[in-house]
Amino acid sequence: MKEEFTLTGLFTDLYELSMAEAYFLGGKHEELAVFDYFFRKLPFEGGYAVFAGSGTLLTALEDLRFQPRELDYLKGLGFNKSFLKYLRNFKFRGNVYAPKEGTLIFPTEPVIRVEGGILESQLIETLLLNIINFQSLIATKASRMRLAAKDRYLVDFGLRRAQGLGGYHAARAAIVGGFDASSNTKAALDFGLHAVGTMAHSFVQSFDDEISAFRDFASKRPNNCTLLVDTYDTLHSGIPNAITVAQEMEAMGKKLAGIRLDSGDLAYLSKEARKMLDMAGLYYVKITASNQLDEQVIKSLLEQGAPIDVFGVGTSLVTAPPDAAFDGVYKLAYAYGKPRIKISENLKKVTLPGKKQTFRVVQKNGTLLGADVVGFHEEIHFDKMVHPFDPMQQLSFSDVEFEPVMQAVMKQGEIISEQISLEEAQINLKNQLKQLPDEYKRFENPHVYKVGLSEQLHQQRLEIKERFKK
Amino acid sequence: MKEEFTLTGLFTDLYELSMAEAYFLGGKHEELAVFDYFFRKLPFEGGYAVFAGSGTLLTALEDLRFQPRELDYLKGLGFNKSFLKYLRNFKFRGNVYAPKEGTLIFPTEPVIRVEGGILESQLIETLLLNIINFQSLIATKASRMRLAAKDRYLVDFGLRRAQGLGGYHAARAAIVGGFDASSNTKAALDFGLHAVGTMAHSFVQSFDDEISAFRDFASKRPNNCTLLVDTYDTLHSGIPNAITVAQEMEAMGKKLAGIRLDSGDLAYLSKEARKMLDMAGLYYVKITASNQLDEQVIKSLLEQGAPIDVFGVGTSLVTAPPDAAFDGVYKLAYAYGKPRIKISENLKKVTLPGKKQTFRVVQKNGTLLGADVVGFHEEIHFDKMVHPFDPMQQLSFSDVEFEPVMQAVMKQGEIISEQISLEEAQINLKNQLKQLPDEYKRFENPHVYKVGLSEQLHQQRLEIKERFKK
Repeated sequence: MKEEFTLTGLFTDLYELSMAEAYFLGGKHEELAVFDYFFRKLPFEGGYAVFAGSGTLLTALEDLRFQPRELDYLKGLGFNKSFLKYLRNFKFRGNVYAPKEGTLIFPTEPVIRVEGGILESQLIETLLLNIINFQSLIATKASRMRLAAKDRYLVDFGLRRAQGLGGYHAARAAIVGGFDASSNTKAALDFGLHAVGTMAHSFVQSFDDEISAFRDFASKRPNNCTLLVDTYDTLHSGIPNAITVAQEMEAMGKKLAGIRLDSGDLAYLSKEARKMLDMAGLYYVKITASNQLDEQVIKSLLEQGAPIDVFGVGTSLVTAPPDAAFDGVYKLAYAYGKPRIKISENLKKVTLPGKKQTFRVVQKNGTLLGADVVGFHEEIHFDKMVHPFDPMQQLSFSDVEFEPVMQAVMKQGEIISEQISLEEAQINLKNQLKQLPDEYKRFENPHVYKVGLSEQLHQQRLEIKERFKK
Repeated sequence: MKEEFTLTGLFTDLYELSMAEAYFLGGKHEELAVFDYFFRKLPFEGGYAVFAGSGTLLTALEDLRFQPRELDYLKGLGFNKSFLKYLRNFKFRGNVYAPKEGTLIFPTEPVIRVEGGILESQLIETLLLNIINFQSLIATKASRMRLAAKDRYLVDFGLRRAQGLGGYHAARAAIVGGFDASSNTKAALDFGLHAVGTMAHSFVQSFDDEISAFRDFASKRPNNCTLLVDTYDTLHSGIPNAITVAQEMEAMGKKLAGIRLDSGDLAYLSKEARKMLDMAGLYYVKITASNQLDEQVIKSLLEQGAPIDVFGVGTSLVTAPPDAAFDGVYKLAYAYGKPRIKISENLKKVTLPGKKQTFRVVQKNGTLLGADVVGFHEEIHFDKMVHPFDPMQQLSFSDVEFEPVMQAVMKQGEIISEQISLEEAQINLKNQLKQLPDEYKRFENPHVYKVGLSEQLHQQRLEIKERFKK
């Protein structure tokens, strides 16, 4: 697995560099700092989100360097010479704690913890946010489509409508979320995905008639031929011609792999297509559907009994409307020997101080209770948790276990364990979704998964806040 | 200008390669084909869209090659050996016709025309769509923000919430649409943008008190210092501390560049901030505002008289919700010596045959009439145009001029003229928006810009469609 696009030191907001320079010139840039990555709002009004992108992030962190060309540019912007000399030898040497890819994550709780010199831990903010926000967004969207599609085959068709180069990692994150394959060939190569593709209308149009196009394509790809049947008239031309070609292929010992519907009423057309194919004995020919699919349309098609075997999903998967962004942030929790918070009149925006861990509350039978506790990293047991914005609300625990969500994945800038594969991440998510009660998974008004603070953390936040008030 | 991310041959949907192989094995892969890029629906319920990305596209087309590693991969997928040999020496040698970046574009009309061998013109489909769809989406969004912001300074702050690597070209397209600068440092270097940045809350938090953080930052960046004033309490701590530091800077002959508001009621806070700064004689200190801005919020802030000098726009600019995608498509119009169309029961989806040009109708006084005619590329004058979906509707012209929208930009695979700079693209858009009456620019229910067909084109489409019916 070799990622094609190298993320160099300048793949960042300029202010990370301005702050790094200030830390450097202050001479305390190597003092320990702790940053938390967390998010505030679930996308798609859903009941959960899916963590993805750490494989990309950790590789990027290990390889992060400033190129000579980039340093020259910063020189031209007026950056300090000794700081630039420092950047020339820069390598990230911090520690990173993160969940496995495919882990369920919830608002407010720390999802990634970065510990390192304050300069390096600050400097990676934009890079980390860019990678994790996007891949978690797409993995979450993909997992909703997987829930809707049940066991049908799901393929990413999104590259043409993707947000530019974003399509590359969208294909990766879609696999974490539960997709089976991608039409994005570069992503398939680099990430080891199953690459699939059929034909476009233009191929059919380029022939004088549809059946000539079908025959030509089938003769050149006899072992993997899916025919697009809606260029002229799906029921009266496309499917009958596909059946003719499938029968001609049978006569030569070959089998037509499938047909694709790309317009019209997909429920109706797929039922008609299935009937026509079955009447011709072509039970094995699979039906692929595409055209502006999303999780709601897929759900509706299956509720209508549409006999669709493969869904090709484009725009809605890779750009994840209507949200189109995951609102993750990266906040300082500890620096220069002290826990730190950001104050706000709004308690929702007051951050959590210190070195923390997120604990998932699991019932004895393995089912998730629907609650995570944020505590200090060295805590192990909790009798109750406190609501993060309304301290009067508390939740008591009995007969449950507490599983830490974040694990050490990088030590002093080196990845410390083999990253799990995308297939393993997909299985991880599948298992976690099994543990999560259905009420959290429905699309309309899902149950709210509770995230609370340990009493210790709650107390410390309160004390720091009071100190600042004075 | 050197783009960092190389788009190689495999940056495509697999089906482009399957079709290319079929064309190659058929031996007619070099026969002339013509493809049109066009879109069907304006994003954001707006009255116009902005063309962007051709600079990126043309460079990508000139450089498009298949790497040995990619060819090995295709071999593993079972592609034909002689076809892979052909791909090893592949270079795009077609002609491309496109508008200048920053040109207004409208639904249905051809925006780019590609002429070349059918294999090569088909093969670039995904690449072209990926680049042009995304950059045109962002340029359109940016131009709406520019209209709302009038003459205020607009900065792209979006990289952290961008769709992964998509943030790179989003920064580029934002400039075409009217932005002044970007925090995205890599994009600034590669595209020659003005890079800007301030400080984060974490920098302020890392000090024991706010004023120490401000003093430290000001001492290290005396010539370009913008202080973030909302970490603790904007009106009672942030702004008073910034004023103190500004006065200390004045005593040393320096000037504080600005303050930044990143939360709360930006209209109220900016007015209070301006008053407090002015009372201290700090008329020159600029006010930057950020935090979930979009064109509607910017418009509302200026209507309320908010004295904001700089808007930092993130998520909404670079991911362009709620649409998040531009629905451009790439359709075959001519192949093997014949004009081609895609038939559909829905006349809206019947494509336009032949080698075409889009003509903009300009009145004698220079104002746009609000109509474009799609005709054959050799046409020069039109007495009227025909509605593309409802032939009974026609529009007659008198006393107007017809300006071709697409120009030759690539000949046999080589860029034939220096691309205009992003600044020139921005000026091009500015001039075009001046020519466009206000009714097409408003956000709510804008006038519908008309696109029609020349009589010749209308007739030819009708004839081909009738022929297919038989």
